[in-house]
Amino acid sequence: VVAAADGSVVASTDLLLEGRHFRQDWSTGYDVGRKAAAQNLADVAAMGAVPTALLVGLACPPSLPLTWPDQFADGLRDECALVGASVVGGDLARADTILISVTALGDLDGRPPVRRSGARPGDVVAVAGRLGWAAGGYAVLSRGFRTPRALVEAHRRPEPPYACGPAAAKLGATAMCDVSDGLVADVRHLAEASGVRIELDSKVFPISRQMSDAAQALGQDPLRWVLTGGEDHALAATFPPDAELPEEWLVAGAVSAGEGVLVDGEPYERGGFDHFR
Amino acid sequence: VVAAADGSVVASTDLLLEGRHFRQDWSTGYDVGRKAAAQNLADVAAMGAVPTALLVGLACPPSLPLTWPDQFADGLRDECALVGASVVGGDLARADTILISVTALGDLDGRPPVRRSGARPGDVVAVAGRLGWAAGGYAVLSRGFRTPRALVEAHRRPEPPYACGPAAAKLGATAMCDVSDGLVADVRHLAEASGVRIELDSKVFPISRQMSDAAQALGQDPLRWVLTGGEDHALAATFPPDAELPEEWLVAGAVSAGEGVLVDGEPYERGGFDHFR
Repeated sequence: VVAAADGSVVASTDLLLEGRHFRQDWSTGYDVGRKAAAQNLADVAAMGAVPTALLVGLACPPSLPLTWPDQFADGLRDECALVGASVVGGDLARADTILISVTALGDLDGRPPVRRSGARPGDVVAVAGRLGWAAGGYAVLSRGFRTPRALVEAHRRPEPPYACGPAAAKLGATAMCDVSDGLVADVRHLAEASGVRIELDSKVFPISRQMSDAAQALGQDPLRWVLTGGEDHALAATFPPDAELPEEWLVAGAVSAGEGVLVDGEPYERGGFDHFR
Repeated sequence: VVAAADGSVVASTDLLLEGRHFRQDWSTGYDVGRKAAAQNLADVAAMGAVPTALLVGLACPPSLPLTWPDQFADGLRDECALVGASVVGGDLARADTILISVTALGDLDGRPPVRRSGARPGDVVAVAGRLGWAAGGYAVLSRGFRTPRALVEAHRRPEPPYACGPAAAKLGATAMCDVSDGLVADVRHLAEASGVRIELDSKVFPISRQMSDAAQALGQDPLRWVLTGGEDHALAATFPPDAELPEEWLVAGAVSAGEGVLVDGEPYERGGFDHFR
């Protein structure tokens, strides 16, 4: 949150690198544009703000067909349109692979931001949006498959529940983040920032038929996708115990005194993505 | 300029890529931090705003010594301190070479932004800050030399005249930009956006002794550095003819009806840097 002379603006920034965050053979320029916008708009929504603008840096090889940046720009535009935001600036450079930076700005409409540090013992933990779908799509693509289509599409184009961010702020959310590194890893950020323990109940998470079928075919555990998969950009938040949550929010646990994250009462051995592991 | 509920924020973004925008053997991490901050803070100042915050993305190889990011962060911090700004957010990723994205935000303090499109025939053209120094330093380094030190330092750490940006707005500047691609190229942007011609008088530009000596030693033309060298992040602006300009501003030409850029009455054959030439 950057104070202005007479207001405030929420800002967040991300890098997306070809070969690390996306692959040209898995995603089109349009997909990458949608995803680059989505993950940054979700960051802003996770603070309770309404996204207003993106600034985008794009570096690419001269050999890249011009259709790619065109489609990328279309993807940015269409994702922004879902929340009424637009691309307001950028930079262009030459590089050997495609490199993207996105900064999102948002408006709090006079509300204080929802930070990561406000969770209190007794609060409930709730999530809005899909969990594990993008991880399932990634697992499918990694093994050379292109179906189930719903999972592959979820990897290519996340569908963050943008409106749930500002709505959570109005519902009194005490802490919030978007799920970009994996649910366990991200709620651990909330727990650490708030000085509390977060306990999750894995039985509440829906496992779609596509996820269970794909996981069985690949010999993987769909619950692991739910608990550790990033990139769906769901929202995870804590609310006072008496908050009346609409159906978009799935109550998935509780905040207690202590530290760390428990899943079904046990420490979860590994959670989420570490860039330098 | 991104409208907020009750105000506005100026935002600008840039990419800096190792091997293209900086080299580890020419610049330390501290130098790169200073420069990365400077070029974005200058962009914001060039709209008449006071820079308030940076968001910085950094991708680097795991093999990079940890001192590099530490020094880079120190450089960002020290450059920001010159204008009272600070780093408020960022992202970290892994890449084969060092990649940096910087987004700067700024505050207009209630003034309208100075755009590129407001130059009018009869206006004067003026510049604040150094021209050609960084280009001279680049030429020196490219030939394997490390002196004159003043030029090399100018390449490593530009010294934009930050305060001249908001001051120009108060002086009634009709159009402004920072000189990042080269003076001729950048005032061409003003001319095109404003639908006018800009005529520059090359005799007014000071050529320092270091520049003339280095240019002679390298067999180059120091005036070419002044007219086409980017990276000093000087400010170029147009003002109404009756504006009373303080000594920081060097009157270097005039705006007339027409199009394009003339230097000493002639079209200038080539001006500035094109990333995809």
